[in-house]
Amino acid sequence: MTQSIINTKIQPFNATVYHNGDFRDISEQDLLGKWSIVMFYPADFTFVCPTELGDLADHYEQLQKMGVEVYSVSTDTHFTHKAWHDTSETIQKIQFPMIGDPTGRISRNFGVYIEDDGLALRGTFVINPEGEIKVAEIHDLGIGRSASELVRKVQAAQYVAEHDGEVCPAKWQPGEETLSPSLDLVGKI
Amino acid sequence: MTQSIINTKIQPFNATVYHNGDFRDISEQDLLGKWSIVMFYPADFTFVCPTELGDLADHYEQLQKMGVEVYSVSTDTHFTHKAWHDTSETIQKIQFPMIGDPTGRISRNFGVYIEDDGLALRGTFVINPEGEIKVAEIHDLGIGRSASELVRKVQAAQYVAEHDGEVCPAKWQPGEETLSPSLDLVGKI
Amino acid sequence: MTQSIINTKIQPFNATVYHNGDFRDISEQDLLGKWSIVMFYPADFTFVCPTELGDLADHYEQLQKMGVEVYSVSTDTHFTHKAWHDTSETIQKIQFPMIGDPTGRISRNFGVYIEDDGLALRGTFVINPEGEIKVAEIHDLGIGRSASELVRKVQAAQYVAEHDGEVCPAKWQPGEETLSPSLDLVGKI
Amino acid sequence: MTQSIINTKIQPFNATVYHNGDFRDISEQDLLGKWSIVMFYPADFTFVCPTELGDLADHYEQLQKMGVEVYSVSTDTHFTHKAWHDTSETIQKIQFPMIGDPTGRISRNFGVYIEDDGLALRGTFVINPEGEIKVAEIHDLGIGRSASELVRKVQAAQYVAEHDGEVCPAKWQPGEETLSPSLDLVGKI
Amino acid sequence: MTQSIINTKIQPFNATVYHNGDFRDISEQDLLGKWSIVMFYPADFTFVCPTELGDLADHYEQLQKMGVEVYSVSTDTHFTHKAWHDTSETIQKIQFPMIGDPTGRISRNFGVYIEDDGLALRGTFVINPEGEIKVAEIHDLGIGRSASELVRKVQAAQYVAEHDGEVCPAKWQPGEETLSPSLDLVGKI
Amino acid sequence: MTQSIINTKIQPFNATVYHNGDFRDISEQDLLGKWSIVMFYPADFTFVCPTELGDLADHYEQLQKMGVEVYSVSTDTHFTHKAWHDTSETIQKIQFPMIGDPTGRISRNFGVYIEDDGLALRGTFVINPEGEIKVAEIHDLGIGRSASELVRKVQAAQYVAEHDGEVCPAKWQPGEETLSPSLDLVGKI
Amino acid sequence: MTQSIINTKIQPFNATVYHNGDFRDISEQDLLGKWSIVMFYPADFTFVCPTELGDLADHYEQLQKMGVEVYSVSTDTHFTHKAWHDTSETIQKIQFPMIGDPTGRISRNFGVYIEDDGLALRGTFVINPEGEIKVAEIHDLGIGRSASELVRKVQAAQYVAEHDGEVCPAKWQPGEETLSPSLDLVGKI
Amino acid sequence: MTQSIINTKIQPFNATVYHNGDFRDISEQDLLGKWSIVMFYPADFTFVCPTELGDLADHYEQLQKMGVEVYSVSTDTHFTHKAWHDTSETIQKIQFPMIGDPTGRISRNFGVYIEDDGLALRGTFVINPEGEIKVAEIHDLGIGRSASELVRKVQAAQYVAEHDGEVCPAKWQPGEETLSPSLDLVGKI
Amino acid sequence: MTQSIINTKIQPFNATVYHNGDFRDISEQDLLGKWSIVMFYPADFTFVCPTELGDLADHYEQLQKMGVEVYSVSTDTHFTHKAWHDTSETIQKIQFPMIGDPTGRISRNFGVYIEDDGLALRGTFVINPEGEIKVAEIHDLGIGRSASELVRKVQAAQYVAEHDGEVCPAKWQPGEETLSPSLDLVGKI
Amino acid sequence: MTQSIINTKIQPFNATVYHNGDFRDISEQDLLGKWSIVMFYPADFTFVCPTELGDLADHYEQLQKMGVEVYSVSTDTHFTHKAWHDTSETIQKIQFPMIGDPTGRISRNFGVYIEDDGLALRGTFVINPEGEIKVAEIHDLGIGRSASELVRKVQAAQYVAEHDGEVCPAKWQPGEETLSPSLDLVGKI
Repeated sequence: MTQSIINTKIQPFNATVYHNGDFRDISEQDLLGKWSIVMFYPADFTFVCPTELGDLADHYEQLQKMGVEVYSVSTDTHFTHKAWHDTSETIQKIQFPMIGDPTGRISRNFGVYIEDDGLALRGTFVINPEGEIKVAEIHDLGIGRSASELVRKVQAAQYVAEHDGEVCPAKWQPGEETLSPSLDLVGKI
Repeated sequence: MTQSIINTKIQPFNATVYHNGDFRDISEQDLLGKWSIVMFYPADFTFVCPTELGDLADHYEQLQKMGVEVYSVSTDTHFTHKAWHDTSETIQKIQFPMIGDPTGRISRNFGVYIEDDGLALRGTFVINPEGEIKVAEIHDLGIGRSASELVRKVQAAQYVAEHDGEVCPAKWQPGEETLSPSLDLVGKI
Repeated sequence: MTQSIINTKIQPFNATVYHNGDFRDISEQDLLGKWSIVMFYPADFTFVCPTELGDLADHYEQLQKMGVEVYSVSTDTHFTHKAWHDTSETIQKIQFPMIGDPTGRISRNFGVYIEDDGLALRGTFVINPEGEIKVAEIHDLGIGRSASELVRKVQAAQYVAEHDGEVCPAKWQPGEETLSPSLDLVGKI
Repeated sequence: MTQSIINTKIQPFNATVYHNGDFRDISEQDLLGKWSIVMFYPADFTFVCPTELGDLADHYEQLQKMGVEVYSVSTDTHFTHKAWHDTSETIQKIQFPMIGDPTGRISRNFGVYIEDDGLALRGTFVINPEGEIKVAEIHDLGIGRSASELVRKVQAAQYVAEHDGEVCPAKWQPGEETLSPSLDLVGKI
Repeated sequence: MTQSIINTKIQPFNATVYHNGDFRDISEQDLLGKWSIVMFYPADFTFVCPTELGDLADHYEQLQKMGVEVYSVSTDTHFTHKAWHDTSETIQKIQFPMIGDPTGRISRNFGVYIEDDGLALRGTFVINPEGEIKVAEIHDLGIGRSASELVRKVQAAQYVAEHDGEVCPAKWQPGEETLSPSLDLVGKI
Repeated sequence: MTQSIINTKIQPFNATVYHNGDFRDISEQDLLGKWSIVMFYPADFTFVCPTELGDLADHYEQLQKMGVEVYSVSTDTHFTHKAWHDTSETIQKIQFPMIGDPTGRISRNFGVYIEDDGLALRGTFVINPEGEIKVAEIHDLGIGRSASELVRKVQAAQYVAEHDGEVCPAKWQPGEETLSPSLDLVGKI
Repeated sequence: MTQSIINTKIQPFNATVYHNGDFRDISEQDLLGKWSIVMFYPADFTFVCPTELGDLADHYEQLQKMGVEVYSVSTDTHFTHKAWHDTSETIQKIQFPMIGDPTGRISRNFGVYIEDDGLALRGTFVINPEGEIKVAEIHDLGIGRSASELVRKVQAAQYVAEHDGEVCPAKWQPGEETLSPSLDLVGKI
Repeated sequence: MTQSIINTKIQPFNATVYHNGDFRDISEQDLLGKWSIVMFYPADFTFVCPTELGDLADHYEQLQKMGVEVYSVSTDTHFTHKAWHDTSETIQKIQFPMIGDPTGRISRNFGVYIEDDGLALRGTFVINPEGEIKVAEIHDLGIGRSASELVRKVQAAQYVAEHDGEVCPAKWQPGEETLSPSLDLVGKI
Repeated sequence: MTQSIINTKIQPFNATVYHNGDFRDISEQDLLGKWSIVMFYPADFTFVCPTELGDLADHYEQLQKMGVEVYSVSTDTHFTHKAWHDTSETIQKIQFPMIGDPTGRISRNFGVYIEDDGLALRGTFVINPEGEIKVAEIHDLGIGRSASELVRKVQAAQYVAEHDGEVCPAKWQPGEETLSPSLDLVGKI
Repeated sequence: MTQSIINTKIQPFNATVYHNGDFRDISEQDLLGKWSIVMFYPADFTFVCPTELGDLADHYEQLQKMGVEVYSVSTDTHFTHKAWHDTSETIQKIQFPMIGDPTGRISRNFGVYIEDDGLALRGTFVINPEGEIKVAEIHDLGIGRSASELVRKVQAAQYVAEHDGEVCPAKWQPGEETLSPSLDLVGKI
């Protein structure tokens, strides 16, 4: 892992999503032009995953208002995504597209594919409208993620992108002050 | 980034830290036997960085109690770390070791080195006592991290490591219930 | 496809099966010592597949009596196999082990993996107790197989294996005469 | 055998056939434009082979009516094919072209060549008018094939090719119902 | 063809012969210990070939008395050899072993295999009891060989081998004088 | 010796011949347009060689009438050829060109060069007017050749070349019947 | 070190300098057109370095009058250069640009990078207006340099460059006589 | 010049010196055990060189007292060194060994060989008793060196080597104060 | 030494000569258009060499009249050539150009460079006006050459070049008869 | 020709000589223990060659007394050598061994083989009893050598070998004074 994924362009892929009761083709081109969250999890019909997906589903309306699309990805097929959505109460809350990645190509593109298992790690990526990855977060299988912290990161990434010359200090929340770097501040904070 | 860093062993390094008014040698061996946080930032005497380091310094006592050591790393020398510590109020709060990585070797080991700049990305890594990376989080330069969310992740990682067979659902906090995966739960959540 | 799979040994694999309400590890070692059928299909929760699996399930008792174990394989996980078994009437008839092959390794071993889709072709293989493949049959995705013809092939393969020097002519059924090749027959049939 | 032959184009070859008392050149181009069966067997003047060839000869009229041409292939020369046809009663029934493949090139193209013996395995292939292989079936030397099951497979393959969006369930016979996959059926069969 | 086959050892092979109404395994080891003629021809059931084989069959008794074994070889199988022997009057005269070389390995060993046709050229080789090739003669397909001239060559080769220091001048026949090379003859003949 | 020299084109060379009391340059171009015999022998001023060359000299008039040019070749220089011709009664009979091949290039072209000795084996080659080798015959050093048998081979080669569709059976002599291959003859001789 | 750096062109680089209270981009193009001194030292905030830099700062006015620009370089960032300039009395005397080389590229270009430490050796280089290195001087870390001797070297280099055909003998000072090489002097001094 | 020569061991060589009216063999082993100066110059019987060599000869007594041996090197032979010493007044002053390096090996070892000219650049090297190069100074051909500055550098190098933990600030002379680096001085000078 | 230098073209070089009290550039182009002698010797100011050079100097007038230029070459510089010429009585007799070859390039071109010593062997080469080497003579270091024999060789080489079709027999002197090769002479001398 | 043959060991060979009416094997081992001359010439039965060989034959008695063996070599066979010796008056004078080198191996060993012609250049080599080549002399084909000059060279080579520390000046003859190199002579001759 000598070269970081941060600031690289997302790589090409083709896949099928289950979304709002339908199947639809998707490619990396569909992620350009707006902010995206791509959220990997190991497998449908397993344990921690639904709570994480449910947590994210609960923040989907807020993210939509921020102009952010959300994609969940596992190495299951879109058929399995539909079947899970049909049978699980938690998953039924999901209104964002669920990508099927049975070849593991997308998971490999983002460096979260576990070759020995054929599953994805718990990785979350924030991608800007130019298709550049700005935030990456990867957990080992047992450790759940926080959707509200993810929302905060997206807010910070969007703020920095929109306000040239300002940077977000630690644990910044929208509305708080940011920092405008200037020569005078060097060594002063 | 085809192979994830998660669950790999930390790679060997040798470096000098500035710690509590002193210089001291350190290697990857010193990270074994307890939990560690390794926190990279771009450069001393710059802007977002001090607030992140200050935020982490404020949580250091709590992390120490959890049995976690904290290391900050930039590609500056330990001489520059001392000079910054001497002159910045925020940095004076830091009581954990500050690693000097002028060769960029450690930054390359963790995949956060920016070859064109000679600086590290904002990457944070949680490492277990066996030296295996369990959590990775990397931000583009402008986007600050949250120390309290980091504490939560370490708590989840420690809980999972100590309680075989239980997993932490999303946004879990110590004291909350966890899940024990069993066959009956498949497809039921 | 310059080298035929016929008479090669099955290659090593490790996988998890869903079988009779339980999860269990399995490897190529478990196939040795008795006759096996390994039956690949594209994906759980899809169309032709269940009828084929149901057809095979209906012949399972007969095959068991012939000393033959049956394994179905798709690139879905064992979690998905369980979920499908729980929800589909046809699949509930299945009493043989259902192998999860999310890495595609077993499908590649038998040459039925479709790299672009991450799915397996409709391939059926008859394997003798020494682990050697004696019969292979592969259909494009839309074309269903016949379980009764499969039973006939296994019977012929078993007969030939047990009666050294006799061979089964076309469309042979148990009880019918077979041929014992002798020099006198050369050019006489 | 990591890449399946199914859905690949037949590869180029040149050969001589014995057909209706005559010798004639043939290439892979002659197989395009209609459905074909290519049926390999080990050697002329041997045992199981004639019964299989006779079984196929008995179904030739039916296959002709379905628009299907049949080719038998062994690594013998066309001279030997003629000599066998002249002397064997069973073989005299054959009215389809018998391809001589003494270089083994065609047998290698279809992956049925046994390098150590210079003979072909018992492989049968159904090829659509575009020259794509849709069904493959390979038996070890002693195990005979069934021409009537082969006819069923060709019928299914033709039906699927002609009725876009329908698929043939297991052991389908012409006239029986087929399945039209729709989203509602996912997980319902 | 930069390195001549003359004086090289025959290379290893395994094959089946048709001989006196029987099938038998043979290898290059069977050729050691006595003189051998290996005679290749293109294919069974063809034209020039039988006359050549018949011509050789007519000299077989003489060659046997000279301690020479004869082997005919084509790329047909031993089954086809038997069938030809059964049906052709000329071939029925043959009492020496007929080697089946369907893989072409022996033909390649002697450099007479035609890759594009899968057939052997008309090549004849005289091999001494040590397995070294002493005489080679190769004709294009249409040009027949002479068995009596072959007998003469074997006689010359045997004479030279048995009489150290004598050499056979042109068109030598047994009983004629040979030459003993001596320094005085240099430039004198 | 995996690729036979038969039917290959003669390769380019440049050399000097001694011919009728004169020295003259020659190349492979000079062999085109008529039939040629190229006859290699080990060395001038040695033993068997002169008798073979004398035997060939005695048939030269006949070969000339058949439109065949003859070339003898050894690795000696043309100076040595002249000196031998001047001093040996047998060699004085020679009226065809004697090629000097001190570099061994021509001998290597025809695969008769003995690398350890710098000499040529006793190889004879019949070449058609297109420069294609039709007959090859190579003897170990001690075994003499027969010029009259060579004449017979050339006659057969010429007959086949001129009579498309006829082939020469074994030990054919001009005037004898040849065979016209037809389908009816397959398996009948 | 088989190829000397003397008389090679300086290689391309991009960097940021701290100069007179400001940050500014710089490349190797900025060194062309006038004489330059490039002076490497190990690290900011260390020991020998400031006295060497102060010594050079004291000669800067004289060098400016000679048309020479001075650049100091370490592998620290320009942020650290500013911080050091702000806090060290000695460094505050510096009026020439201080180059930040955190990637070590410039240090590698001049062959003074210590790979194991990520620091530069004490190397000084005199570069002519064409960008060619005329003088190189490299000390191990503990050994200080002399700015007045450096001034003398630059004077000699400038004198030689401007007076074609004259050379500077040892320890030459401006105003002293130089030598004009002529044939008569060979062997006379 | 990516790897500096400083702190590398001198590489092996064998040469002949002219010294005090005699010829003597020398190798890199002779330089071990005491301090050495190795001083390269382009060629005997040329211009700047004698004044530099005379300047160094004038300081030889002082350097001898400091325990330093001096070697001058050019790519001339030792014969030419003697002839120059015999005929030049300036060179007659030289009492140190003059190394002949006609192969250019020693010049290449120290990176001062000019491949196009077969001459050495004006390079001076200070080597410690362990054979490690501590100071390097290379001038383009026209620019003379100063022996007194060289003496100063050797004094500094010796002082640092003998007083562990002290370093020599800029333009240090024996007797002046040195600096003992301590943590308190970081950022204070 | 598998490829002889005889009849090869002299390879390109650039050098400086000392000639008649002056320095001058020279290249291989200067040798074209007339006959040349290139005479290598080990080193200036050594022993055998001057007597050889004096011997050649004594024949220079004769060679000039024959239209031959003479060049002496050693790996010394042209400065050393001048110094030797100034101080040695024998060398003062030399009026031909003395080439300095300190890089050894010319010596390598002619195959006389001794890599271990950086000196040239005693090699003499006669070169025709087309720059082709016609005579080569190389002695080990201690063995002197004869200028008068060299003159004889040049005379023979010139005679052969000017009289097409005649060759010089052994120890030929100008005025003596030469031989015109004709076919009649083959084997007659 | 970058590496001179002088002072290399002669390389291994095996050959047959014609010597005093007999054929005999020879290898490079036979040349050890005494001085040898190896004299190459292009071809037997040619023009200049016999006069050179005759000249050398005339000096053979003198060379024998000096303890020197002589070998002539051409790429002809030993048969041709004998034939030439039998028929040429000049060659009949030869009493030394004539080596046959039809493979060209010895000629290649000494670098005199002409690949395009298969002949040797006129090369003469003087070899000491240790098998080291001390003198080499190579002429283009038309230019004869002088046997008396060759004798002088051998005398010089023997003298130098036997009198350690003395060297032979130019055109030295036995009995004349030689030079003992001493330091005082440097630059004095």
